[in-house]
Amino acid sequence: MADTKRVLLVVSYDGTGYSGWAFQKSTHNTIEEMLNRAIFGLTGEEVHVIGASRTDAGVHAYGNIAVFDTKSTIPGERFSFALNHILPEDIRVVESREVDSSFHPRHCECEKTYEYRVLNTRSQNPVKRLYSYHYSMPLDVKVMQQAADLLVGEHDFTSFCNTESQALSHVRTITDIGVRREGDEVIITVTGNGFLYNMVRIIVGTLLQIGRGKGVPEDITAMLEAKDRSKAGPTAPAKGLFLLGYKYKNQLTNRQ
Amino acid sequence: MADTKRVLLVVSYDGTGYSGWAFQKSTHNTIEEMLNRAIFGLTGEEVHVIGASRTDAGVHAYGNIAVFDTKSTIPGERFSFALNHILPEDIRVVESREVDSSFHPRHCECEKTYEYRVLNTRSQNPVKRLYSYHYSMPLDVKVMQQAADLLVGEHDFTSFCNTESQALSHVRTITDIGVRREGDEVIITVTGNGFLYNMVRIIVGTLLQIGRGKGVPEDITAMLEAKDRSKAGPTAPAKGLFLLGYKYKNQLTNRQ
Repeated sequence: MADTKRVLLVVSYDGTGYSGWAFQKSTHNTIEEMLNRAIFGLTGEEVHVIGASRTDAGVHAYGNIAVFDTKSTIPGERFSFALNHILPEDIRVVESREVDSSFHPRHCECEKTYEYRVLNTRSQNPVKRLYSYHYSMPLDVKVMQQAADLLVGEHDFTSFCNTESQALSHVRTITDIGVRREGDEVIITVTGNGFLYNMVRIIVGTLLQIGRGKGVPEDITAMLEAKDRSKAGPTAPAKGLFLLGYKYKNQLTNRQ
Repeated sequence: MADTKRVLLVVSYDGTGYSGWAFQKSTHNTIEEMLNRAIFGLTGEEVHVIGASRTDAGVHAYGNIAVFDTKSTIPGERFSFALNHILPEDIRVVESREVDSSFHPRHCECEKTYEYRVLNTRSQNPVKRLYSYHYSMPLDVKVMQQAADLLVGEHDFTSFCNTESQALSHVRTITDIGVRREGDEVIITVTGNGFLYNMVRIIVGTLLQIGRGKGVPEDITAMLEAKDRSKAGPTAPAKGLFLLGYKYKNQLTNRQ
């Protein structure tokens, strides 16, 4: 047996068929459990990976992060290749490497970026139905960007947080929100140092309302001040949300 | 009962879960049968739609065409809305309208366009796994375009046709092939007046071989002259193929 080492995995998945990332008593169908089982299949060790982001059921990822400790002699960078032979094809380990044994993916300075895809066409596109939110109302992307700009910075995001959140503080910092049209889709990209329960999906639901003319960008200021979930827009569906990746200090772990 | 009228449907579908377009004795799981059943549910008439293109199992479409005759009083342009309430969500009628009773989607002058999506990255992307062919070898798009140009025009495409084809003639005209890189994908677009069994997928398989350096563009000329399936490249998988749409004379029935 070799010494214990900590291995980091960059994990990409289609969230459609899963009950989200985090372990649940009621189901074995989570990304976390799939990774635990694959690592057991490879090393014979019963590990519990620590995830950076506990994505909800139906949310997709290009670069979520998991770490685990192992005594296996397999080199850190070989885990991705080996695990991909065991994992179902809707989960891929894009990259793996050994990290410092003190590294914890949730207790460290980092930024993460989410992307939300809105299919803005008259009729639904069957091929995109599981990877975007079909929204047939015309959207003013400029107005959405103006509203988004008012969310950037350090704020109390209580109005943009599911009321079941158990977070002690609702203060978070958003460093950037971009709203752009790409073909028949409107894509909203949100970067920040941490996000509350359903925060990105509520931001998107609110921007869509403003984008279709229900409200004006300046409403955002009052919503933030209210610290009341009922003042913001609806929660956009999970299937349009993608966790693009993490940036740890100088260390980029993102989609190529 | 109203007079009989002929209705044209522009049909979009995710081919993943189906055994292709055409009716088969062994399964009810075809696009054609889903449409027949939905029309029966709506009008009570047992119809057999006539499809423009009998796409293979796993092939997707943005604009395949189906026509049928009905005595229903529902206006032609209302069928899309009504059928979408009955059809499964992986099939959508993008558009519907009444056409001349002599119109037959396979016996008329038309052009159709296919798109083939190749995911050209080191590791598979779970979200794109059902809608592209993952090809990890580096591809030279310029060389692929040079090879593609040699396929444009009227040729005997026997070398690019499944040997089980029952077509009387293998002469077809390709009016355009474009090869471009878009993000992490290489996209091949083929337009022509008609295609043989597996023709687009064999063209793609051949262009990929040349693009990765196995052969040179000029090989295409010898392949065409050989009129021998074994001289061309492999058949690329169905899941990367999309039927984009049809152009009937001056009448465009395509993705918006």
